[in-house]
Amino acid sequence: MPRVIKHPDLRRSEILNHSLALFLSRGYDNVSLNDIIADAGISKGVFYHYFLSKEALLAALADRFAHQTLAQLDDVLTDRTLNVLQRLNGFLARGTRIKTELAPGAWAVFGALFRPENQGLYQRVVAASETLFRPILTDIISQGVKEHLFKTDDPEGVADLLQQLASNTYSFVTRIAGAATGQEKQEALKAFHRRLRLNGVVIDRLLGLPDGTLYVPSFSEIKKLMTRLTE
Amino acid sequence: MPRVIKHPDLRRSEILNHSLALFLSRGYDNVSLNDIIADAGISKGVFYHYFLSKEALLAALADRFAHQTLAQLDDVLTDRTLNVLQRLNGFLARGTRIKTELAPGAWAVFGALFRPENQGLYQRVVAASETLFRPILTDIISQGVKEHLFKTDDPEGVADLLQQLASNTYSFVTRIAGAATGQEKQEALKAFHRRLRLNGVVIDRLLGLPDGTLYVPSFSEIKKLMTRLTE
Repeated sequence: MPRVIKHPDLRRSEILNHSLALFLSRGYDNVSLNDIIADAGISKGVFYHYFLSKEALLAALADRFAHQTLAQLDDVLTDRTLNVLQRLNGFLARGTRIKTELAPGAWAVFGALFRPENQGLYQRVVAASETLFRPILTDIISQGVKEHLFKTDDPEGVADLLQQLASNTYSFVTRIAGAATGQEKQEALKAFHRRLRLNGVVIDRLLGLPDGTLYVPSFSEIKKLMTRLTE
Repeated sequence: MPRVIKHPDLRRSEILNHSLALFLSRGYDNVSLNDIIADAGISKGVFYHYFLSKEALLAALADRFAHQTLAQLDDVLTDRTLNVLQRLNGFLARGTRIKTELAPGAWAVFGALFRPENQGLYQRVVAASETLFRPILTDIISQGVKEHLFKTDDPEGVADLLQQLASNTYSFVTRIAGAATGQEKQEALKAFHRRLRLNGVVIDRLLGLPDGTLYVPSFSEIKKLMTRLTE
């Protein structure tokens, strides 16, 4: 085939787009490296120039997803008509909304991450997203402390805990996705909601806020997100 | 070699002992499956009867370690001369003491768990230990609620969070173990201590206790444990 010179960022982005489309239509496991390079019209050498492995490509997709999410959250984070608590809650609420909007089909790509043999990969994907959002959350919390809305002497610790609690949903998600009956699924959703409320109370109390101040998705929001994600 | 009939539990325990001794003297990575079966005087078939892989054997060692720890904590958990808070704190404090006593050499066996490629295995080992301790912690917290010492409507959630916080030390431990200079190590130890205090405050506030009530290892205890673990 004729050699086409493309800007490396564009080429990388195209490989990601082709892979995403393939993963969405066939499922991550059913797509081989050869499928990807055939579909993208590149050689194996070109692929390996950008990604060390199919796993690394999945991690890059997750990383891009995190950056896209951030771009969609940017205006709520910087909206000066909102106080710091409203910005933090807006950030959390919109995060849930975006995940729900993007959820249909996402399980075909990212569902593989929730299988036991991929738990190490899952942890690395989560870590990449946390690295992106940690300084942003730390800034918001520090600002709130400065304005006497929040009370803590460890804003970075609280930001990191908030992330840990938010990402520690592995066992709940796998339980919901693996539910054999409607009743099992309902109970798994309730357990998830109970834990999310407890997580919210943890941050409320660490920031010196009344219980229930921090945004926590409602039961119906969780159900909608999880149903879309796993259907 | 003559066929020796042994009780399966005894045989299993012997394989674990031989492997542990080998891992301790040579390091997990430098011991092959063949080394283990040669040292234990068994065939590959016998090994695979008990363990699916070297990884499964490591998980079994961690599981045995958790049960041994529990056996050493049993008396403090059931000591009726202590109130519930004293029992919970005694449980946490003795856990740290036992880890410190057992630490010399443990890195040679379990250090492999803290490498990126073993993070999935690490998570499974932690999950096995959490499954063992979750109902015990839930019982203690429920008892405390019954006696009006603690205040929460989700004892199991608090018990689970306590475990999640306690086991979420991965990034701190790897940072301490990987410190290039004494100053880096000191800073990593301080960050770890700051996080452990924050974790303590989380549980204090979830249980309606004043900050600093729950046992948190002192800086010197953490330093002693981590120094022994990584030296």
